[in-house]
Amino acid sequence: MAAGRPQLTLAELAAAVAERSGGRLAAAIDGDGDRYIDAVAPLESAGPSHLTFLANVRYRNAVATTRAGAVVLTAADHAALQPATSVVVCEQPYAWFAFAAQVLNPVAQHTPGIDPTARIDPDAKIGADVWVGPGAVVEAGTDVGVGCRIEASSYVGSGVRIGANTRLYPGVRVLDECSLGARCVVHSGAVIGADGFGFAPFAGAWIKIPQTGRVIIGADVEIGANTTIDRGAIDDTIIEEGVKLDNLIQVGHNVRIGAHSALAACVGISGSTTIGKRCMIGGEVGIAGHLAICDDVVITGFSMVSRSITRPGVYSGGFPVEEANTWRRLVARFKRSDSLVTRLKRLERAAGAAPDQEEDDD
Amino acid sequence: MAAGRPQLTLAELAAAVAERSGGRLAAAIDGDGDRYIDAVAPLESAGPSHLTFLANVRYRNAVATTRAGAVVLTAADHAALQPATSVVVCEQPYAWFAFAAQVLNPVAQHTPGIDPTARIDPDAKIGADVWVGPGAVVEAGTDVGVGCRIEASSYVGSGVRIGANTRLYPGVRVLDECSLGARCVVHSGAVIGADGFGFAPFAGAWIKIPQTGRVIIGADVEIGANTTIDRGAIDDTIIEEGVKLDNLIQVGHNVRIGAHSALAACVGISGSTTIGKRCMIGGEVGIAGHLAICDDVVITGFSMVSRSITRPGVYSGGFPVEEANTWRRLVARFKRSDSLVTRLKRLERAAGAAPDQEEDDD
Amino acid sequence: MAAGRPQLTLAELAAAVAERSGGRLAAAIDGDGDRYIDAVAPLESAGPSHLTFLANVRYRNAVATTRAGAVVLTAADHAALQPATSVVVCEQPYAWFAFAAQVLNPVAQHTPGIDPTARIDPDAKIGADVWVGPGAVVEAGTDVGVGCRIEASSYVGSGVRIGANTRLYPGVRVLDECSLGARCVVHSGAVIGADGFGFAPFAGAWIKIPQTGRVIIGADVEIGANTTIDRGAIDDTIIEEGVKLDNLIQVGHNVRIGAHSALAACVGISGSTTIGKRCMIGGEVGIAGHLAICDDVVITGFSMVSRSITRPGVYSGGFPVEEANTWRRLVARFKRSDSLVTRLKRLERAAGAAPDQEEDDD
Repeated sequence: MAAGRPQLTLAELAAAVAERSGGRLAAAIDGDGDRYIDAVAPLESAGPSHLTFLANVRYRNAVATTRAGAVVLTAADHAALQPATSVVVCEQPYAWFAFAAQVLNPVAQHTPGIDPTARIDPDAKIGADVWVGPGAVVEAGTDVGVGCRIEASSYVGSGVRIGANTRLYPGVRVLDECSLGARCVVHSGAVIGADGFGFAPFAGAWIKIPQTGRVIIGADVEIGANTTIDRGAIDDTIIEEGVKLDNLIQVGHNVRIGAHSALAACVGISGSTTIGKRCMIGGEVGIAGHLAICDDVVITGFSMVSRSITRPGVYSGGFPVEEANTWRRLVARFKRSDSLVTRLKRLERAAGAAPDQEEDDD
Repeated sequence: MAAGRPQLTLAELAAAVAERSGGRLAAAIDGDGDRYIDAVAPLESAGPSHLTFLANVRYRNAVATTRAGAVVLTAADHAALQPATSVVVCEQPYAWFAFAAQVLNPVAQHTPGIDPTARIDPDAKIGADVWVGPGAVVEAGTDVGVGCRIEASSYVGSGVRIGANTRLYPGVRVLDECSLGARCVVHSGAVIGADGFGFAPFAGAWIKIPQTGRVIIGADVEIGANTTIDRGAIDDTIIEEGVKLDNLIQVGHNVRIGAHSALAACVGISGSTTIGKRCMIGGEVGIAGHLAICDDVVITGFSMVSRSITRPGVYSGGFPVEEANTWRRLVARFKRSDSLVTRLKRLERAAGAAPDQEEDDD
Repeated sequence: MAAGRPQLTLAELAAAVAERSGGRLAAAIDGDGDRYIDAVAPLESAGPSHLTFLANVRYRNAVATTRAGAVVLTAADHAALQPATSVVVCEQPYAWFAFAAQVLNPVAQHTPGIDPTARIDPDAKIGADVWVGPGAVVEAGTDVGVGCRIEASSYVGSGVRIGANTRLYPGVRVLDECSLGARCVVHSGAVIGADGFGFAPFAGAWIKIPQTGRVIIGADVEIGANTTIDRGAIDDTIIEEGVKLDNLIQVGHNVRIGAHSALAACVGISGSTTIGKRCMIGGEVGIAGHLAICDDVVITGFSMVSRSITRPGVYSGGFPVEEANTWRRLVARFKRSDSLVTRLKRLERAAGAAPDQEEDDD
């Protein structure tokens, strides 16, 4: 990946970041703007040609002693941490670092073409500058936009639309009639448009309900490895623009995920649930079906959501581990909480106090 | 998918449903039996040629104002909701709707044949009317039943048996010696028969135990995208007839799942556990190993099962999310429940009451 | 799989196990050392040519009546259970059984060669005795060690190194620049080296941070079906030697897993977390990012780890299911624990006791 990596001075890098961010990320350089920078690196291992930043507050002590050629910091951190190297001072160091890393690591250009072992249906429409890898399949009536990459052994069903410059890594499956916007990235093993889980009980067995909806994915969506997004039962499953899905996520049929929401790995979303815009869902969260989560909701990892959420904010539901014996005792006490309440009531009665109405209700 | 969709009158549709259900689903039409119906649609967006139904009690208000050509309801809902359109009145609207959707959305017929890029071992036996897609592989000693579809880049190992009319979507893997019954549907990325997780600790490392069992799958089983079913360690892993597995489920070695059980996405079942017939397991449930869950058990989503269940019924174990500050306080209190009990005991002693024996045990 | 299975006397089998374990597993035979053994089998179904062992304490009663040709037991179990058949007496029956199963079930030798439909880049280096299956792809600059198997439709990117005798089952993906040690086993659908989940928030959207690290995997690692291991963001993701990962596990970017740790299915590990050596992580455990778990930690299934663990031991965090009505009442009480504390304080004040300082803090 290091091949052909660009080398720029710190000042050139700052100019490139300003341009890439549409002029919205201003920065001042305190130090040597003529120093050459050729890569990003972690605080502790960065060398003199590397750019680094403060990824986590736990690593603050490493800033002062970093050997990096430059570090990106807020003005406050710059003043407080006093690194011995050049500093890019800006308001959003993480975003600045992200753009700089993009500048320093341009996506390798692919050679357009169709591998001779790929199977493209004559009724598929393949845009200019597309690469279709070995063993990949594109079925009839499908439209692959300019600049796309359909990598090795990926499968694109019939009637699919893929926007310009979208990339399917090796082994992605996009089933019939689904669509992806421009500039999407889909990682290996993701399955888009498998049947939703729809069965009606009848006479001791399950009757399959044909899943006739589609999956509609907006622009700039990234989908992690082995993530599954089911097609709608009747209506469509919808992933709006800019959504980022990590690996091994399950998105049930008729779910809608609002623009720019980000979901960490192993999240499961049951059917017909709507998630708002700009939500952040932590790893292994489970969300029941037919719920509505409003915009700007944060759910911390390992939580269960079984009711709709109507107010923006942070929500939690997980218990941190304890040493096993302690945990066993806590769980045992929890399961005996009835007896605790009984004892409390007995004492209250003995003391002549009126027990809480609320507690008497259950 | 709309291509070649049948168009029937409501009366013809009712007759087709009656036939498809083996005469077990009677219905009366209140309204215009001669109206043409060509698709199913949700209550809110259905138009005059669409059939709809009440998918969830939350949508009851939409029944009265639906523009659908017909709606399937129980007699009670029909009387209570008084829709302005034709009504199919029956005892099991969901099942009736499922059969009707099947009639209106027949599975597209595949063209039998073997794609020239598929690799069929000369010692494999391929039944009549089978389709093997591009890049698919069928190994020696394998028997693929009549009417099966083995779609693009799927892999079927050696000594496998696949019953008639079973469909493997693109990218399914069935490893050596496993078997599937008739009319199964396996979605993309599912892996059937990978090694179970069997290692013996020895001298600070792990010694692999060869996984010599198989996976045996009954008829009419559906397996979701990227679900994994491990082969048995010595005995077989068994999925009985009519079982429905959603996406991203893990079934450990030597598990048995009883007929017509349905498991939602992201469930994990550890090795050697037996699940009874007609069970329903919610999403993200985790079930420990070497347990027995009896027939007719319902486990709600996000629950942990660490003991056998011997009585049919509904079981739960998840905590719904709270606003994060509230949750933190609740967890802190929970972890101090020892001190609560101590204080209670102190009060009881002061009041001259004998503390509960049970509480003194721990 | 039974084809070509070896047949040995019990004494010959014991000698083979002794050799395979490097002489570290001594055993004494009490009974007929000349009996032929050709397979391992479970206690209950084993026959006279089968070796069996006590897999779980629940099955102790079955030892006395087993029809197996031989059973592996500790001296204590031998004395206590008195089986009517030959006994292999040793200190570590499970490890002895594992080695014996390996002897009785040798891995089938593959025929070296490159399937004509595989695509090997001319700049890839393929060692002796390698098998590359149909539709598999090996990109430029990659080095595949002697004796490897790259099975059907697997994908190996550019600049990858794969150690000797490693096996990729059908449909594995190893992305650019990653490396695997010798004797690894990677099951179908696993994805090694997809991009980590790295995005910086900026102006209401997410800016992708190029994931320029690699995945580095040691020798003797086994990786389950559909498991995903993300490449590092800048530094590498590292899986040390002898680690065993079950199915559907997510390993985030820059995670390090120490040697000989074993993780059960559906575990999720967020980015930059370090797990020590010889840890055992139960199924569906979730581990937050930027944590350090020390060596020799056991985490039981369905636990959430949100802080570092610095002492070896067993840790738990899951609540076992209850009958649903009981559970609902317990959760309701839990959510009202504030009121419980309030009532307790009221009683304490009435009794003239000083409330705990700790409880007053929140």
